[in-house]
Amino acid sequence: MLPGPTNVPPRVMRAMMKPLIGHRGPEFKELYHRTLDQTKKVFETKGDLVILTSSGTGATECALQNVTDDGDEIIVTVNGFFSERLSEAIKSYGGKPVVVGADWGKAPRIEQLERAIKEHPKAKALAFVYNETSTGVTVRCLQQLGELCANHDILLMVDAISILGGDNLPVDDWNVDLCVTASQKCLMCPPGLSFVSVSEKAWEKIQTRKAKRSYYFDLLMYKKYLEEGFTPFTPAVSLIYALDEATGMILEEGLKQRYNRHRVCAEAIYNGTEAMGLGALAEKESRSYTVAAIRSPQGIEESKIRELIKSKYGIDFGGSLGQVKGKIFRVGVMGSVGAPEIMTTVGAIASATAELGFKPKIGEGLAAARETLSRLPSQLDKE
Amino acid sequence: MLPGPTNVPPRVMRAMMKPLIGHRGPEFKELYHRTLDQTKKVFETKGDLVILTSSGTGATECALQNVTDDGDEIIVTVNGFFSERLSEAIKSYGGKPVVVGADWGKAPRIEQLERAIKEHPKAKALAFVYNETSTGVTVRCLQQLGELCANHDILLMVDAISILGGDNLPVDDWNVDLCVTASQKCLMCPPGLSFVSVSEKAWEKIQTRKAKRSYYFDLLMYKKYLEEGFTPFTPAVSLIYALDEATGMILEEGLKQRYNRHRVCAEAIYNGTEAMGLGALAEKESRSYTVAAIRSPQGIEESKIRELIKSKYGIDFGGSLGQVKGKIFRVGVMGSVGAPEIMTTVGAIASATAELGFKPKIGEGLAAARETLSRLPSQLDKE
Repeated sequence: MLPGPTNVPPRVMRAMMKPLIGHRGPEFKELYHRTLDQTKKVFETKGDLVILTSSGTGATECALQNVTDDGDEIIVTVNGFFSERLSEAIKSYGGKPVVVGADWGKAPRIEQLERAIKEHPKAKALAFVYNETSTGVTVRCLQQLGELCANHDILLMVDAISILGGDNLPVDDWNVDLCVTASQKCLMCPPGLSFVSVSEKAWEKIQTRKAKRSYYFDLLMYKKYLEEGFTPFTPAVSLIYALDEATGMILEEGLKQRYNRHRVCAEAIYNGTEAMGLGALAEKESRSYTVAAIRSPQGIEESKIRELIKSKYGIDFGGSLGQVKGKIFRVGVMGSVGAPEIMTTVGAIASATAELGFKPKIGEGLAAARETLSRLPSQLDKE
Repeated sequence: MLPGPTNVPPRVMRAMMKPLIGHRGPEFKELYHRTLDQTKKVFETKGDLVILTSSGTGATECALQNVTDDGDEIIVTVNGFFSERLSEAIKSYGGKPVVVGADWGKAPRIEQLERAIKEHPKAKALAFVYNETSTGVTVRCLQQLGELCANHDILLMVDAISILGGDNLPVDDWNVDLCVTASQKCLMCPPGLSFVSVSEKAWEKIQTRKAKRSYYFDLLMYKKYLEEGFTPFTPAVSLIYALDEATGMILEEGLKQRYNRHRVCAEAIYNGTEAMGLGALAEKESRSYTVAAIRSPQGIEESKIRELIKSKYGIDFGGSLGQVKGKIFRVGVMGSVGAPEIMTTVGAIASATAELGFKPKIGEGLAAARETLSRLPSQLDKE
């Protein structure tokens, strides 16, 4: 139950065993075409999609570096560890970050973003962390923000690393110009691939950039090779096999059904832990449905809870980072997760906190989780 | 028999099936420590080694971008498609490429390199393509060049993508400051990982660079995390499992034995094809032992030979790139290759060229290959 890398279904693992093929031949071209097509359906985009061999940070770099000239202002939302990292990274691309902040556990508001766009009319892009993995916060104003950016000369770049494929994000409908994610979160693949979707508006900006600052992440080169059906550099072929299988499974389940499953599972964790006396870090209206950050009971260091749960129940949680260090643990609800995993998780939290001296209301917690899970249409068919 | 991606042994494929683990936990730390240690033995370095999730081009970018400030001269050897690409890429890092060229099929000479170093005393680095994959040329003066660079204020960066693990390259002994390779060639893993070794001399230059131009490829960040035993960004864990197994196998075989095996196998292809009436593209003293570029008989387009061999014998060769387009085909001798593969390959070349109207001396070709292969100490144990 880590907030990435997540459980990879056996079907996806087995797909990686297919024999390696040359990445300049017709077999690869066919595989790549099908996989791209399926992944675009998950992105809900008819625009271009680039698959990179890198972690999500590489894709973020690719998206922003290609549109940033030295000295360009980039507005960036900062409300946790990963968005802080992103605002730091922007400086490496020659950009000047203009921070729109919120307390950890909270989301920046649309009014703040609107003001920033008005106050910085020359800003090249707005880099928006849709789901802050370190605090379990989803910034819910993305659709409104997309409309706003569509009406201004500014690109909307969305870091959707820990959410795409697990919660609603129709890239074209919501006017997202550059949408970034990675393979090892809600796309339920092993880590190693990352993605950038590119809108027409983004291509225009990329074509008029002053200097190219990277060869490996040069989007124009990817575009050129994409037209032939290939990648400019050797791709991680085994991981493309995995992605082919995983995106196939995602489309089999259906995007709406999938997002609903994630939401119900996450709410079962929030409701279950709340009923037993624990709280979430995130404000209620911004709670993420792909990662739940739960506060450790007062006086108990969160790593003790995680270690106990790992050794006794074999379940791995994410730890705490930055300014909430020691205070929260994070439960990933990504990809291949259903009622059995959630009930085991809630039960393990109850037992471990009890063993460490907290007095959880165990019965209430389990009942609340079970009741929430009853909203799931049917048992998840994982295989 | 592609010049990458190469055959991945079943042991290495199976290693990828191990369950995904968190990349911030003790299991990963142990795996990473062991794998790094083994890979350093293959590099023959006691210095630092950074493992990236990217193709080899990403590692080249990482090595050069970290030492290049805007306007810095970088001397670069150019004698084929990939080294041409490298000299192009240097411009993206703000560098000014100073080209030391040779005809395709030939190697630049040490005298040329020495002259370039003297004429460009401020050059920050010399980027040296040890094995030009597009022409099957190994530039054999690397050891001398290392001595030269050690005595000057210039870094030696070696692109060893298609050779490291298949031919001699003792990184420390030969004074290589930045050695770059990728997983899918002689290290016999699937593609997706790449590597940069960093000498003390290189760290000094990196620490005094004026501006950091990338976040994802920032070597100082990798160094910081390396000290804790981790990577700064999510690594491709499944591929690290593969690398753990593959480097274990490489060390079981022994580096010397392994290099000898590659050399004998490659020479069997050169001798076999020569005896049947075909020629190699590379000048004799620079012939690569990891990729053999064979000239297509006059009047026969090389792609016809490759297609026939693929459909009839199921063997994949590399095609021709750039200015030798249509004229050569390339046989990879990388990683998991022994006498059976080589005899099948030589036989297939004889049959296919005969079918396409050439009159190969088939008996002579096969005899020459067989005789060369008799120098192999014993059958390769692949499993």
